[in-house]
Amino acid sequence: MNSSTPASASARRGLFVVLEGGEGAGKTTQLRLLEAWLRQQGRDVLATREPGGTEIGERIRPLVLEHGQGEVDPRTEALLMAASRAAHVEQKIKPALAAGSVVLCDRYVDSSLAYQGAGRGLGVEAVEQINQWATDSLAPDLTVVLDVDPELSRARRAARDGGSAGDRIESAEADFHTRLREAFLQRAERFPTRYVVLDASDEVDAIQQQIRQRVAELLSADPYTVREDA
Amino acid sequence: MNSSTPASASARRGLFVVLEGGEGAGKTTQLRLLEAWLRQQGRDVLATREPGGTEIGERIRPLVLEHGQGEVDPRTEALLMAASRAAHVEQKIKPALAAGSVVLCDRYVDSSLAYQGAGRGLGVEAVEQINQWATDSLAPDLTVVLDVDPELSRARRAARDGGSAGDRIESAEADFHTRLREAFLQRAERFPTRYVVLDASDEVDAIQQQIRQRVAELLSADPYTVREDA
Repeated sequence: MNSSTPASASARRGLFVVLEGGEGAGKTTQLRLLEAWLRQQGRDVLATREPGGTEIGERIRPLVLEHGQGEVDPRTEALLMAASRAAHVEQKIKPALAAGSVVLCDRYVDSSLAYQGAGRGLGVEAVEQINQWATDSLAPDLTVVLDVDPELSRARRAARDGGSAGDRIESAEADFHTRLREAFLQRAERFPTRYVVLDASDEVDAIQQQIRQRVAELLSADPYTVREDA
Repeated sequence: MNSSTPASASARRGLFVVLEGGEGAGKTTQLRLLEAWLRQQGRDVLATREPGGTEIGERIRPLVLEHGQGEVDPRTEALLMAASRAAHVEQKIKPALAAGSVVLCDRYVDSSLAYQGAGRGLGVEAVEQINQWATDSLAPDLTVVLDVDPELSRARRAARDGGSAGDRIESAEADFHTRLREAFLQRAERFPTRYVVLDASDEVDAIQQQIRQRVAELLSADPYTVREDA
């Protein structure tokens, strides 16, 4: 890590990649495949998702996700998600990027914009402002949106859960999933150089190849140029 | 509650009074005396403080206040406080005001502006924006700032705690308390019609009389005029 080659300079800076999309889009599968590929190349990888193993995040998580807690109105939920994210960024993501790792994160700010902002009607802009502050403006270098048709998403969830209700967020209604999808796609349209939208109904391997291609491009580029371009 | 006299119209609207100030300022004592006086007049009173008995707030509180949780950085703390406040406003304060009660709250947004914004250096404006969103812009009709000299505050805390460390927030350093005091006073200067600043070193009864006078004025005024003036 202390050599002075360009590759090492890149590694010191790290690379921050986020996978986004509705439930059943295949984010976790793609993230695991990407992680394995990067490790095979000798990259340091932090594969994470909120609460990311932070003590405070682990204690916040059940307040948001579990059935039966009741009393979680949308604003409270959005603020709890932002609090968990703030700890995750500060304790895990920033140190890993500073150490030169590739950080692969299963969901990040865009999920809050989609779920709380668009899905629960709080407004994307307000939730974005809160999350920008929560993350100290740390944005991903690349966000992969696994775009899924709401009907397909529902079928995959049903197959996985064996028909059970799933957690509170997953039991939300169909119209909700359509709003989520639109929110992800709008983000990608707004920042085309930092997003790639892939059809989640494609073959797993075909999707993975497209992701690897984009990640490889970023890893081979001058990291400072990439950051400023973003 | 269903009569059509002006007093009843006032009661339907409710009145929202907040007590603020550093530790050892005597907020709790003053709030209890004010509550007793209002009840003697037959007023419905909600005397509250975060987490205000909300289920989610009770679960957030220990994350912020207890020793030994560790890992609570300032942004995470500010967002957790805002989350607890959002639930408190939505579930307790708004319904009580809608029912015409006088709501007496021990600390509110200004404490976050002082503790997290000024005290922990997050910036008053950023914390204010988050709290404005968290509370759906619900502002008190009157905020009583019990202004206390940091030296006096320290002496009172030591006497109460018997020299123990107290909770995490209370163990913060002296300079911190000076910044808190300035933050409360700056809020009062900014909104003079909605604030009253009282010297916490005065006699308890003298302070209480001044608070009652301001509250009585607000209760006898046309509530709609009061709100718009605020």
